[in-house]
Amino acid sequence: MHVNEENQAPSSDETKIVAAAPSGSEPSRRDFLKRASILTLTIPGAGAMLTACTPEDAATAGEHGMTSGERTGGAAATQLPANAPPLRRYDPVLPPLSSERTLRLHWRANEAPVRISEDRVVNGWTFEGDIPGPVVHCRVGDTVEFTLTNDGIVPHSMDFHAARVDPKVAFRSVAKGESVTFRFTPKYAGAFMYHCGTAPVLMHIGAGMFGAIIVSPRTPLPPAKEFVLVQSEYYFGDPVDGVIQFDFNRMLTTMPDVVCFNGRPGQYIREPLRVKVGDRVRFWVVSAGPNHISSFHVVGEQFETVYLGAPPGNAIHGVQTFSVPAGGGMVFELVCDVPGEFPFVNHSFGHGEKGSVGLLVVEP
Amino acid sequence: MHVNEENQAPSSDETKIVAAAPSGSEPSRRDFLKRASILTLTIPGAGAMLTACTPEDAATAGEHGMTSGERTGGAAATQLPANAPPLRRYDPVLPPLSSERTLRLHWRANEAPVRISEDRVVNGWTFEGDIPGPVVHCRVGDTVEFTLTNDGIVPHSMDFHAARVDPKVAFRSVAKGESVTFRFTPKYAGAFMYHCGTAPVLMHIGAGMFGAIIVSPRTPLPPAKEFVLVQSEYYFGDPVDGVIQFDFNRMLTTMPDVVCFNGRPGQYIREPLRVKVGDRVRFWVVSAGPNHISSFHVVGEQFETVYLGAPPGNAIHGVQTFSVPAGGGMVFELVCDVPGEFPFVNHSFGHGEKGSVGLLVVEP
Amino acid sequence: MHVNEENQAPSSDETKIVAAAPSGSEPSRRDFLKRASILTLTIPGAGAMLTACTPEDAATAGEHGMTSGERTGGAAATQLPANAPPLRRYDPVLPPLSSERTLRLHWRANEAPVRISEDRVVNGWTFEGDIPGPVVHCRVGDTVEFTLTNDGIVPHSMDFHAARVDPKVAFRSVAKGESVTFRFTPKYAGAFMYHCGTAPVLMHIGAGMFGAIIVSPRTPLPPAKEFVLVQSEYYFGDPVDGVIQFDFNRMLTTMPDVVCFNGRPGQYIREPLRVKVGDRVRFWVVSAGPNHISSFHVVGEQFETVYLGAPPGNAIHGVQTFSVPAGGGMVFELVCDVPGEFPFVNHSFGHGEKGSVGLLVVEP
Repeated sequence: MHVNEENQAPSSDETKIVAAAPSGSEPSRRDFLKRASILTLTIPGAGAMLTACTPEDAATAGEHGMTSGERTGGAAATQLPANAPPLRRYDPVLPPLSSERTLRLHWRANEAPVRISEDRVVNGWTFEGDIPGPVVHCRVGDTVEFTLTNDGIVPHSMDFHAARVDPKVAFRSVAKGESVTFRFTPKYAGAFMYHCGTAPVLMHIGAGMFGAIIVSPRTPLPPAKEFVLVQSEYYFGDPVDGVIQFDFNRMLTTMPDVVCFNGRPGQYIREPLRVKVGDRVRFWVVSAGPNHISSFHVVGEQFETVYLGAPPGNAIHGVQTFSVPAGGGMVFELVCDVPGEFPFVNHSFGHGEKGSVGLLVVEP
Repeated sequence: MHVNEENQAPSSDETKIVAAAPSGSEPSRRDFLKRASILTLTIPGAGAMLTACTPEDAATAGEHGMTSGERTGGAAATQLPANAPPLRRYDPVLPPLSSERTLRLHWRANEAPVRISEDRVVNGWTFEGDIPGPVVHCRVGDTVEFTLTNDGIVPHSMDFHAARVDPKVAFRSVAKGESVTFRFTPKYAGAFMYHCGTAPVLMHIGAGMFGAIIVSPRTPLPPAKEFVLVQSEYYFGDPVDGVIQFDFNRMLTTMPDVVCFNGRPGQYIREPLRVKVGDRVRFWVVSAGPNHISSFHVVGEQFETVYLGAPPGNAIHGVQTFSVPAGGGMVFELVCDVPGEFPFVNHSFGHGEKGSVGLLVVEP
Repeated sequence: MHVNEENQAPSSDETKIVAAAPSGSEPSRRDFLKRASILTLTIPGAGAMLTACTPEDAATAGEHGMTSGERTGGAAATQLPANAPPLRRYDPVLPPLSSERTLRLHWRANEAPVRISEDRVVNGWTFEGDIPGPVVHCRVGDTVEFTLTNDGIVPHSMDFHAARVDPKVAFRSVAKGESVTFRFTPKYAGAFMYHCGTAPVLMHIGAGMFGAIIVSPRTPLPPAKEFVLVQSEYYFGDPVDGVIQFDFNRMLTTMPDVVCFNGRPGQYIREPLRVKVGDRVRFWVVSAGPNHISSFHVVGEQFETVYLGAPPGNAIHGVQTFSVPAGGGMVFELVCDVPGEFPFVNHSFGHGEKGSVGLLVVEP
């Protein structure tokens, strides 16, 4: 791999393929890169097509990238907290619609430790204890009756992008122990983001308070295996008692440590999405940010349809990659004619390498 | 808030919500973050939905973020210049069309101090003394007869994105005291950028030489309250006699100090856009950059229509957020069925926090 | 231009137009900026409309920007290697379709020095010895029979975005001396990226293993002068024996040294694309990244048509600028009614200044 900072002995005198660090790199930049590297080298070690390196390379990557405390810097989670929660796969399957036309939701906002990888627990600000919060699924014209109770320390709120309401009232912040209730009727179908709208919004999204509300059109779309992918970023500060704190100032730099789908880097490399040949697959993709687009792409396939606006209209066809803006959502469809293992990636690969990759297995 | 670099006493032992700075942060990164923070913490203190924190939090933010000279770094404007120009709201209302079919414009390019916030005056390179320059409004098929006289020190020029002309001739640079005249007839409707095209273009746009030319279609669009929003970035160098100089090298890093609409961070939080219930609102949005997209979103609403190309065609519907590329423009429409206070934001929130937020008040 | 780090004597006491460096800039940031600056100041010195500064300014830029070893930092190529390959223009003309319906390609992957500018040779990882690799041109429904033989040291592979195949098999990595063969039949027309898909993909794309496969629709598009532009980024490490090594960790920062079309910064400023008045021009634009979008724009023109998905459908009209996502491609058309010299640029100008600019000359 030769992607380490240490210059390694080149394979031959003739061709030097070392990816060298700049000589002028100072401690803090080095520090930043360490954070990046450890994650980068973690991901490729887990997946199929994304680990095409030789066993020797993988061993080297492991040796230099994953086990060396020297490379882990301030973001290292060398010591998990004593009561670390388990690493749980976030279920990407779109939950079924309710037979009721009114969805009654009562959620809690709270601060909670969230396990995002084998060796990292973050101090999340959450909806319902997880990052992202739960997937909401309803239809155009349904009514969502939503209550948020704040069990957290700082004020929180809820902003559904699918709602048409006065934000000053409905999306208002509530203090610890208080609640807010509002209702709305989605007018448009689509993959909508929700998030805490309490200032500074950057901090509340960056700390984990986001998720997806999927609004299906009144007339159902063609039958498909439907998945929800919410891309987001983590910006790490120092851990306190083994729990990584989020760093607002690093969020402002827009240079993330992790970019991932559904809160855990590379989780769907380890435990892929599975469909059958002939299936239509529909990805409801939300870019929660807080800062970056998702350049969504499936390796070995093209999207038959991307809905730029509300489905079933607003469609373009024959697309390799399309950008979902931060705070936005789009719907991507493909028909799985070919069996195999198809990575889905953020093709902005500096961010892809930081965890926004997964695997779609199409079984024969 | 707990977004300061200093570790504050957590609210309880159990839940530590401090957003910690990385231990390895060195002076200059700290310096960068200080610039960012002071602006960030300024904005939320001014608006409605964007300041949902408790009074105690706001006080803390003020104490640690806004009044401490320690946090203001090189970009601080602790001392306004003696003859500081007043802070003036940039009128976002689309000016009416002329009854004439030929628009005759004679503008001056000059270097001028521009007040962009309570405590900041920048050394602008401007069209007509302001950042952005004036809004031009014409129709497809109208003729624009444009003269630029350079009253500045360095050469300047004018590049209208709505023009179809030989840039080597029409957009040529003119030295101090000289003029250039050209005419053009817009072929397409849309929200077009204009800017100084003199090399290095990055510097001329970054120093303030940009604006919007709005081309309405021949057949009028549906009646609406129409606003023009030009998103842009500032990259601060050290002040000279209280006037902030722009820093070309920081422009190259693409990490801005301020991102805002119509040249002043958060101005439409302080003095919102106002419409009535039932109004159709049309935003003509230009991303002047010089570097970044605008992820344009209205909190509590969805866009009925976004015109990706020339209106009235090229429309998509039911959109929460769409990206306007740097150097591009799009048109966003919504119908205000609900009264209330609707923030419009750049949902890339690291940039939103730096000033690209405003407020649309829908009165009953 | 006054864009240097050194404070220069301002032109007058009244108006100080110095673009000052922040006082707190530390060695490494300075180092980064030096890399950026030297390239920036190189480009404007070469083109027509992009060098509208006075001769005096140009001389100053040269004096401070291009000849001073002090400014060149780690990325300087003060000493070309003894056997430096010549600087060759990458032909941007779309190659003609074959009369055969099956395209048989046998390519080599290898590590090779590539001359990307007068003073820079990089240690490329390449397809067929160049960056980008060759342009492939076929039709929807044609068959591409592709063999890759790895003549390089590290494992490599090939991922065609136009293919619908099992990536685990077709896009698998092959070790030195080995080969992989696969065939595919493009279903959709468009400007598709290809690249090495071996982990870490960021490194393989960043080191040069990318290119374009252009798929024309079965029914030909309107006759046009057709060009292929692949935008990409370089991230420089230290040179070894005069050959610049790529730096994986800098790729992760997403802050490039060079952004350019077809592998060489500013090559089409020096040797423009040439067409005649009345010609329709069709740009097949691919953003190879590895990280960034292309905000594609032609100065002095608007695009009659941008195909967001497969042509001839999925078109929008009357567009000044549109973003091509990293890992994506779009098709841009304009009709050259006006003779002149029209720069085509990445309007994210921090990246435009780093080399993603060219010139389209429309001859009378």
